Amino acid sequence: MERADKELAFMLQYENIAWYEDGAVKILDRRVYPRTVRYVTCKTYEEVISALRDMVTQSAGPYTAAAAGMALAAHTCRAKPLREQLSFLQTAAERIANARPTTARRMSLITRGCLRTAEEALQSGQDASGAIVRYLIETNNIRYNKVYAMAGYLAERIPAHGAVMTQCFGETVVGQMCRVLKEQGKGDVRVFCPETRPYFQGARLTATVCRDMGMDVTVITDNMPACVMQREKIDVFTSAADAICMDGHVINKVGTFQIAIAAKYHGIPYFVTGAPDHVHPNVRDVRIEMRDPEFVLQAMGQRTAADGVKGYYPAFDITPPALVSGVVTDAGIYAPDDLYRYYEDPAHDPNELII
Amino acid sequence: MERADKELAFMLQYENIAWYEDGAVKILDRRVYPRTVRYVTCKTYEEVISALRDMVTQSAGPYTAAAAGMALAAHTCRAKPLREQLSFLQTAAERIANARPTTARRMSLITRGCLRTAEEALQSGQDASGAIVRYLIETNNIRYNKVYAMAGYLAERIPAHGAVMTQCFGETVVGQMCRVLKEQGKGDVRVFCPETRPYFQGARLTATVCRDMGMDVTVITDNMPACVMQREKIDVFTSAADAICMDGHVINKVGTFQIAIAAKYHGIPYFVTGAPDHVHPNVRDVRIEMRDPEFVLQAMGQRTAADGVKGYYPAFDITPPALVSGVVTDAGIYAPDDLYRYYEDPAHDPNELII
Repeated sequence: MERADKELAFMLQYENIAWYEDGAVKILDRRVYPRTVRYVTCKTYEEVISALRDMVTQSAGPYTAAAAGMALAAHTCRAKPLREQLSFLQTAAERIANARPTTARRMSLITRGCLRTAEEALQSGQDASGAIVRYLIETNNIRYNKVYAMAGYLAERIPAHGAVMTQCFGETVVGQMCRVLKEQGKGDVRVFCPETRPYFQGARLTATVCRDMGMDVTVITDNMPACVMQREKIDVFTSAADAICMDGHVINKVGTFQIAIAAKYHGIPYFVTGAPDHVHPNVRDVRIEMRDPEFVLQAMGQRTAADGVKGYYPAFDITPPALVSGVVTDAGIYAPDDLYRYYEDPAHDPNELII
Repeated sequence: MERADKELAFMLQYENIAWYEDGAVKILDRRVYPRTVRYVTCKTYEEVISALRDMVTQSAGPYTAAAAGMALAAHTCRAKPLREQLSFLQTAAERIANARPTTARRMSLITRGCLRTAEEALQSGQDASGAIVRYLIETNNIRYNKVYAMAGYLAERIPAHGAVMTQCFGETVVGQMCRVLKEQGKGDVRVFCPETRPYFQGARLTATVCRDMGMDVTVITDNMPACVMQREKIDVFTSAADAICMDGHVINKVGTFQIAIAAKYHGIPYFVTGAPDHVHPNVRDVRIEMRDPEFVLQAMGQRTAADGVKGYYPAFDITPPALVSGVVTDAGIYAPDDLYRYYEDPAHDPNELII
């Protein structure tokens, strides 16, 4: 992947994601970041799927890793006859998209885009891997510009000298939010990040992005949001989402629902960032991923509970539209029950991923 | 401390607390329990105060440790003239009670009881340490009987085949609740314990008590209560409290407020157990203890956040009466705005500690 691009430099700094190079996909292992910086190297696209399932990368990282996985798949099958290459890539696109159930529809936007790109390249005799990498950089740059616009609308809702609470790890938008706050002369806004058990994405990743952007950032445990909203006068609660259904339901890291309830109780607005997901007309289609319950019984690799005690691990929860103050998109803020209006603008492509 | 007593055996099994013996106080180190079973030995009452501040013991443990500390103080000064012994013990009672600010008033009920006992013993020429130990066993046995009655009222509110959610570590009442549920033929009630960061009391302690009592117990992370209430159809949320103000405000481990908000949202009752605290007429008198913020930036001894990120650690939060369905006492369930009625019964001693 070409790293010279200026926007890409931003991406690599604040997303630390994944790239394809010389027949391998390298993914920053965010399970141990920032205390340890190491990469998982995948030699096959199936290894990329395993890495996605094993939570090696987070937030927007999986989408970039998926595209890099498609580039790797194209490299793997490059010596086969054209028809077999296309078939191989179709299977790869399908399998990578379904690595994790809750995000499968969003992932398929990416893998299908890669597949179309590869098909065009192959039919005109070009290298499919290279075409996919170029496609990824291009779509990411479009995404960054849109997220920058989105961050602008979000930052407008955060008062000077105010305080904002995040949830989990909305990497691009968190980084851009900090950037815009500084541009708007609101660099003294305090950011409070719940730690986000069991993986600590809030403590490890979101807080690190905010620190790198020079913000005053405080990590709290996941039982503190309601208490901190009251004691520290939080002005805005915000999160990204793994899916924003067209009916206004928000699917995001478990805990979002609970913080949104507490925000409502305190009269604090909850703004979710991202484009509405055309692929999810309503919440009934969403399948919440249940992960290995044992993982809840440890922290940073240390067992917490006694033997004979069970765990329980829904990766995501569902926040109903009544708890959502607005969906912050690249084109402004929409009411959660008015999301179809976003796609009335023909410039908004329902097949584009904006998170 | 005499361990033969049947009720005391219950206490030692389910509270694993502290005792005075041969010029030392031994306290089970609940910071590492149940994975490691070790004791902190205190040779002076000041070391007991340090142990309380360092969170060596939890829930009702500090009250027993405080009394054991008073027995140790009596042992330490036994060779002094009577007047100096009394003065020494008065200072010890005051200092031990104030080991942690939020529970100082409840603690002083215990340390003053020990002081009175010591004064009576000394004035009739008896061993003050032994008298304090007997006083502790006696008051604990009274407390266990009252908590058993309290657990009965709580268990009545939990339906057969139901599910109950706890918060932090209400050791005696959790153990007795399980016991009564079994006596009432409701041994299949499922218990869900939020893990209670940053010390994991829910995962380590509450869940272990429930397991030992043979219940079906599941640990969840602190961001899951709202989601689990919905998915697993929780019937009752319950917690003990570090203080129940006479105006109905509940002071308990941080997170209680947030779970109570989520319970209200879902129409799930929240029952807090314990006698109203006559020493806290209203919430304005309560000082919330702020602990070392660095502790929030680690889990099980492993650092989570990057350098330059701040922590924030209020040990307790305040749940207002509007979120409390009832205060479960040894004499039945009282509305949170009707707590003075509890003390209209002359049998209820405002100087007695029932948790």
